[in-house]
Amino acid sequence: MGSRGQPEESRAAILQAAAQEFAEHGIAGARTDAIARTARVNKALLYYYFKDKETLHGAVLDDAFSRVKASVFHVLDSDLPPRDMIVAYVGTYFDFIASNQIYPKLMQREMMRAREGDWVHIDRLIKTYFQPVYQRLGELLHKGMAEGAFRKVDPAHFIPSMIAMIVFYFSSAPVMQRIVHFNPLAPERIAERRAAVLDFISAALFVPHAASSRALRDDLTPRGVSSNTRSVSLQKTGVRK
Amino acid sequence: MGSRGQPEESRAAILQAAAQEFAEHGIAGARTDAIARTARVNKALLYYYFKDKETLHGAVLDDAFSRVKASVFHVLDSDLPPRDMIVAYVGTYFDFIASNQIYPKLMQREMMRAREGDWVHIDRLIKTYFQPVYQRLGELLHKGMAEGAFRKVDPAHFIPSMIAMIVFYFSSAPVMQRIVHFNPLAPERIAERRAAVLDFISAALFVPHAASSRALRDDLTPRGVSSNTRSVSLQKTGVRK
Repeated sequence: MGSRGQPEESRAAILQAAAQEFAEHGIAGARTDAIARTARVNKALLYYYFKDKETLHGAVLDDAFSRVKASVFHVLDSDLPPRDMIVAYVGTYFDFIASNQIYPKLMQREMMRAREGDWVHIDRLIKTYFQPVYQRLGELLHKGMAEGAFRKVDPAHFIPSMIAMIVFYFSSAPVMQRIVHFNPLAPERIAERRAAVLDFISAALFVPHAASSRALRDDLTPRGVSSNTRSVSLQKTGVRK
Repeated sequence: MGSRGQPEESRAAILQAAAQEFAEHGIAGARTDAIARTARVNKALLYYYFKDKETLHGAVLDDAFSRVKASVFHVLDSDLPPRDMIVAYVGTYFDFIASNQIYPKLMQREMMRAREGDWVHIDRLIKTYFQPVYQRLGELLHKGMAEGAFRKVDPAHFIPSMIAMIVFYFSSAPVMQRIVHFNPLAPERIAERRAAVLDFISAALFVPHAASSRALRDDLTPRGVSSNTRSVSLQKTGVRK
């Protein structure tokens, strides 16, 4: 990187290094020395951008969740019909997590801090990111039910179930690997998982067509995006971690 | 409790107090003083039963997972047909977690230890508890598919999805509470969640009857167990935490 005189790049490099350090060691264990070294900036610059470790930690979380929010709102703001939109939402969120596997770890640590009484960052994340996405997903589910495309479901339960299937797969991968005897994070397994999640959610949500409930389950990709394109893009992005 | 001279009761009291302390503070933060005090035993007795804090921690995990294994094997060893058996399994596992909400917390901490390289307990848990349950669930799914009762699913993905929907609900409850503005752990919400999970899994797994896919979704309880009985038993046990 060697990014002196390129403030945006230095900032991005610090955030990236910090995300990794916080995910691995938590806020208490994370060392700003190590972050500065990985980001190839000096520590004074780190503290110039981010007042202290807690501020840096907050910035890492905002950076992560503003990016996931932007990518899912790109779908939620489109004019796709409800079935296509929910499929596109799940695919987009899945791809984001698959390509950024440290985010569930950061979130898991943040939830443990919340349980211990520290809600500083998580209250902001809820208000700025989770709440707006949750509300739009609720509207989408109600719209699909009203149009007869979706079965009757309670968004307060359906939404966390969708999130659970995506997030839990990545957070439990080290344990699953020892149960199933393959690496759940290998690109071909991630592609399998993506298809399995979309199949599961479609089957659970879509009102079966009396005529062909078969065709429905094959309709797992949004219109205009071939299943092939998406799986190739996943192969490219899913490997990085 | 005051259980001098009643070794089984003292041991159980220590395990119960220790589960709570480990779930809240992790192995590093847990204090055997506090455990002995809550269990109303003296510290010498605690160390007589459990050599050190690590041994006690292992015993807590074994106690938890041997109980969950026994209750789900009670279902998996029965002669219920595949649809009834999967519904009974999900209900039983759900009720166990709902009544023992510190177990997902213990497991989450154990998974973080594993990620940091400490697999001592979790390797034993996998071999003794998770692996046998996983294998039986895989056989059940294959049987149901062979009989035409279940859609074609990959057990390696379907099983973690079932677990995810149950465990994630409880572990994310403090965050969900601030998004949905109700307490997800109130008994009536837990009962709602149970019904939602069974509905979700049945809809995703069961081959719809050409004639009535409606009846299928109402068939959420195992034969001979009325939905009323189960929900009452949940109300009783789900509140404790």
